[in-house]
Amino acid sequence: MNPSRPVPLGFFVAAMLKPGSVGVVTPRSFRFDEPLALASGSSVSAYELRVETYGQLNADCSNAVLICHALNASHHVAGVAGDDPKDIGWWDNMVGPGKPVDTNRFFVVGVNNLGSCFGSTGPMSVSPATGRPYGASFPVVTVEDWVNAQARLADTLGIRRWAAVMGGSLGGMQALSWSIQYPERIAHCVAIASAPKLSAQNIAFNEVARTAIRSDPDFHGGDYYAKGVVPRSGLRVARMIGHITYLSGEDMAEKFGRALRGRELDAEYQFHYEVEFEVESYLRYQGDKFSEYFDANTYLLITRALDYFDPARGTGGDLVAALKPATAKFLLAAFTTDWRFPPERSREIVEALIATGRDVSYAEIDAPHGHDAFLLEDPRYHRVVRAYFDNIAEEVGV
Amino acid sequence: MNPSRPVPLGFFVAAMLKPGSVGVVTPRSFRFDEPLALASGSSVSAYELRVETYGQLNADCSNAVLICHALNASHHVAGVAGDDPKDIGWWDNMVGPGKPVDTNRFFVVGVNNLGSCFGSTGPMSVSPATGRPYGASFPVVTVEDWVNAQARLADTLGIRRWAAVMGGSLGGMQALSWSIQYPERIAHCVAIASAPKLSAQNIAFNEVARTAIRSDPDFHGGDYYAKGVVPRSGLRVARMIGHITYLSGEDMAEKFGRALRGRELDAEYQFHYEVEFEVESYLRYQGDKFSEYFDANTYLLITRALDYFDPARGTGGDLVAALKPATAKFLLAAFTTDWRFPPERSREIVEALIATGRDVSYAEIDAPHGHDAFLLEDPRYHRVVRAYFDNIAEEVGV
Repeated sequence: MNPSRPVPLGFFVAAMLKPGSVGVVTPRSFRFDEPLALASGSSVSAYELRVETYGQLNADCSNAVLICHALNASHHVAGVAGDDPKDIGWWDNMVGPGKPVDTNRFFVVGVNNLGSCFGSTGPMSVSPATGRPYGASFPVVTVEDWVNAQARLADTLGIRRWAAVMGGSLGGMQALSWSIQYPERIAHCVAIASAPKLSAQNIAFNEVARTAIRSDPDFHGGDYYAKGVVPRSGLRVARMIGHITYLSGEDMAEKFGRALRGRELDAEYQFHYEVEFEVESYLRYQGDKFSEYFDANTYLLITRALDYFDPARGTGGDLVAALKPATAKFLLAAFTTDWRFPPERSREIVEALIATGRDVSYAEIDAPHGHDAFLLEDPRYHRVVRAYFDNIAEEVGV
Repeated sequence: MNPSRPVPLGFFVAAMLKPGSVGVVTPRSFRFDEPLALASGSSVSAYELRVETYGQLNADCSNAVLICHALNASHHVAGVAGDDPKDIGWWDNMVGPGKPVDTNRFFVVGVNNLGSCFGSTGPMSVSPATGRPYGASFPVVTVEDWVNAQARLADTLGIRRWAAVMGGSLGGMQALSWSIQYPERIAHCVAIASAPKLSAQNIAFNEVARTAIRSDPDFHGGDYYAKGVVPRSGLRVARMIGHITYLSGEDMAEKFGRALRGRELDAEYQFHYEVEFEVESYLRYQGDKFSEYFDANTYLLITRALDYFDPARGTGGDLVAALKPATAKFLLAAFTTDWRFPPERSREIVEALIATGRDVSYAEIDAPHGHDAFLLEDPRYHRVVRAYFDNIAEEVGV
């Protein structure tokens, strides 16, 4: 055997995906030609959304589940991308045949949000008005705007009412907003590791990340596309900051502690400013990787959508009043070591929902992995979601 | 009265300083011509330390207290700088006549550490070998190196044994290191809001800050002095990150919440990426101010000294064994909302000291201000320090 000959990648994919994967998937783009009015008063004239679907929509279109993504994810929720066998969906452990969100029973929709950088219309796209990338001229969008765009997608797909809208973190905020904006179109709202609004500290971390991007000379005020550069340093720093907030201190201590990079714990220090500790190497790697695929304007846009999300703003800060229109049933889950959106934040939502008389389940899961726990395969967490979706399946009759 | 005529600044100083200030102070520089060997194996051939002193050294030189500074502070601990009446010492609420560290009884020494940027020899200084600023060639220094340099200063001042060595945060690490390196030269060690070593998360935050500085094109690998530029953007981001970790989430919620900058809480959002929230404005201001006075190479150097501090490294991770040489008495204090160096970290030290049979007092103070609490005038905190120093005064007979 020629050692330089690549092993067919399908082999690795098969090994990496648990039994029950949706397999190779191909995204589709949906074009919307009617302008979308935005919360800011601005609008986008026409736009595309990149979408993946898994499973089959049933005859009465009652088994559809929308998965909303958080900051850096996309429509590619499950399975393996047709054009890159290493590109496995970000929630593949959650969505698939026999998985907690079972694609043998549900028709699952993953959508890349407006303003993101994975195929949907965003700052990288060419503006029809100028023939050049939108760049800094792409409008600020909000969680509510995303939900409006997703509702149009639902219309196109023939889905009048979602069996469930589900997401973690910022994705959970979209699910929550669905329950307020379109109460009649969502039967169940599943919001994991989420919050009713950002805290001052949350906004502060976002602002530092944005400052890092904006102050990168390659940012050019957001119009870097034409210059053939990318504000890579800024993105790197932004991602490193974000990454620290996704992990718990305990988790970092467990994973890295004070281990030296590539050397014994008791080796002599090297006394330099290059990588000395394992955790530095890890962070640099995460930052580098991210800066190669993520768009800086999208980072600004999505963190700003996070900052602005505050459904109780229209009701004088009263979350109970804000949730009054909701008719869905709710599942919320939070993780004990999540210090970005700690359980207290989910409990605020739970308590407001109880006060409005809504049907709400809440799981507080003792998991060591911080905010990132919502992406990981914790058996107790997955058991909760599975049980909840089993009930939905029964309701829907699938 | 001519409104453009400045009010004498002395008026403001008098109003700002509580009764009991040490008043106007003038720093002195001490030159050391014998090379100082460093932990890294490198050395500095000759160096200066910038120093302030308050109070009078008594006849038997037994009433001297050394105050060690943390990341961004200096020798200017108390009083008002002679050349800038607005420049009040960073621990002026703690040190002065009638204050917890009472300069009517103690001779207090503030020293700017080697490698810092407030008058002591550091990366900004001219290297005698090249006739140009050290820049990137300034050696990495450690907490232990600083203590060795401070010990030489003590020799020069005629202080054989400190009544106390005291510091907060990184300053507390220096006090702790004194008790191990020079047990016979320190009677009391006072370490506030400190830790026996950084956690992985602590190192991670430092590394992001350093990455922001290093990737600023004006950094020029640390040799920016000759170029007439300063890596201001990088410093700004570094400071913003640091600042978030100095405050507690509760404190930020209390101080800023989701308040909009200069507008009513329920005003319309402006939907842009400029300052929208009060907390953004605050962070930008802190970052800007810092980037005007702090040296970027010093930021790297001091955060690295923090990373490297780990006295138990030489004893296979056994802090009890590391503290065995210590003979001082100890006061430790920590603040409940400090998530940079939370009380658990101080308790690690306390427990190790108890295991070595040392005399140790420990106060855990329920204060809302996070890590920064050590700089603030919390009555319970100051009462603890005052009582401790009253005992020292009695021991010393002052």
